[in-house]
Amino acid sequence: MSNQLFKHFNQIVEVHEHEFQKIVPFFDSCHLSKKENILEAGKKCHLNHFASAGCLQMFFISGDGTERTIRFATENRWMTDYLAFQNGTITDFYIQAVEDTQVLSITYDKQEKLLTLFPKLEKYFRFVYQTSYGKSLTMMKYLYDFSKEDIYFHFIEQSPELAKRLPQYLIASFLGFTPEYLSKIKKRS
Amino acid sequence: MSNQLFKHFNQIVEVHEHEFQKIVPFFDSCHLSKKENILEAGKKCHLNHFASAGCLQMFFISGDGTERTIRFATENRWMTDYLAFQNGTITDFYIQAVEDTQVLSITYDKQEKLLTLFPKLEKYFRFVYQTSYGKSLTMMKYLYDFSKEDIYFHFIEQSPELAKRLPQYLIASFLGFTPEYLSKIKKRS
Repeated sequence: MSNQLFKHFNQIVEVHEHEFQKIVPFFDSCHLSKKENILEAGKKCHLNHFASAGCLQMFFISGDGTERTIRFATENRWMTDYLAFQNGTITDFYIQAVEDTQVLSITYDKQEKLLTLFPKLEKYFRFVYQTSYGKSLTMMKYLYDFSKEDIYFHFIEQSPELAKRLPQYLIASFLGFTPEYLSKIKKRS
Repeated sequence: MSNQLFKHFNQIVEVHEHEFQKIVPFFDSCHLSKKENILEAGKKCHLNHFASAGCLQMFFISGDGTERTIRFATENRWMTDYLAFQNGTITDFYIQAVEDTQVLSITYDKQEKLLTLFPKLEKYFRFVYQTSYGKSLTMMKYLYDFSKEDIYFHFIEQSPELAKRLPQYLIASFLGFTPEYLSKIKKRS
């Protein structure tokens, strides 16, 4: 389980086995059942999560009471509300397991301490955040620019494995459709 | 001009004057006149820009030919298309000066070399990206959840100085309104 994180570190920076043994205790390992929350709106956000197996979704409850998903994190992806995590404040988001999911979680204070002790991991997180931020800018362009149908086809083209893995109502929640509208698009395609 | 970057580094990590003298040559300094582009869609994106004075906007041309702004960068903010910057690929975005603007620009290769020579700057960029990524997640929530009017009032409440500084058509381009719609909201308020 932590082996997944070890491999992911080594895709970006060189972390030796003996170093990793000192890194592991900074994390808490947690198994989430499908639909279990690891973060809830209205609570303080003090953990950053690495999905080592399974899939997480980050969503909020919109003004009309519907769940609106803004991100998924499958294996090797990090997920938290970074502003609330950084500032130790209350979050507006939920993070929930889409399927049975294994996460490694680290508190803000422990992450800062870990980075002081292993500065090479600054590069790792810099790269992870640089990529995630870049993707979010590109995602905003799609949301603004594409028609609803184009957003759907772009999503299944870019993330075919994720699209197969997710239930239809979650794809609808992510793309801002009703499940009925998504069915219509799929029938037309 | 580079003094602004020196101060900003030192808000996050400790960089000494003698170190900064070795850092400065990694950057090219550039003055942009109002409406001048420093990045254009269809071209390779190989530079990351620090706004030391003035204001930049990042936008794309949407399918219907309108400019759609996704971010502004005033003093102390970094701006590029991070995915294209990281991958050395062609961008879909423009970066343009909103007013006379002074930028310090660094190529991808030079930034990587700089971070190898001064690993403490990994922490600086990790923090910058962590914050930017956190803000983009929160921005997505507003875009999904808020009514157009609420988006406008939230923007002027959160960024009163920027709202005063920007021409109305750019605020409209950022919030996804027509300039006429923005005028209507302002009259009603």
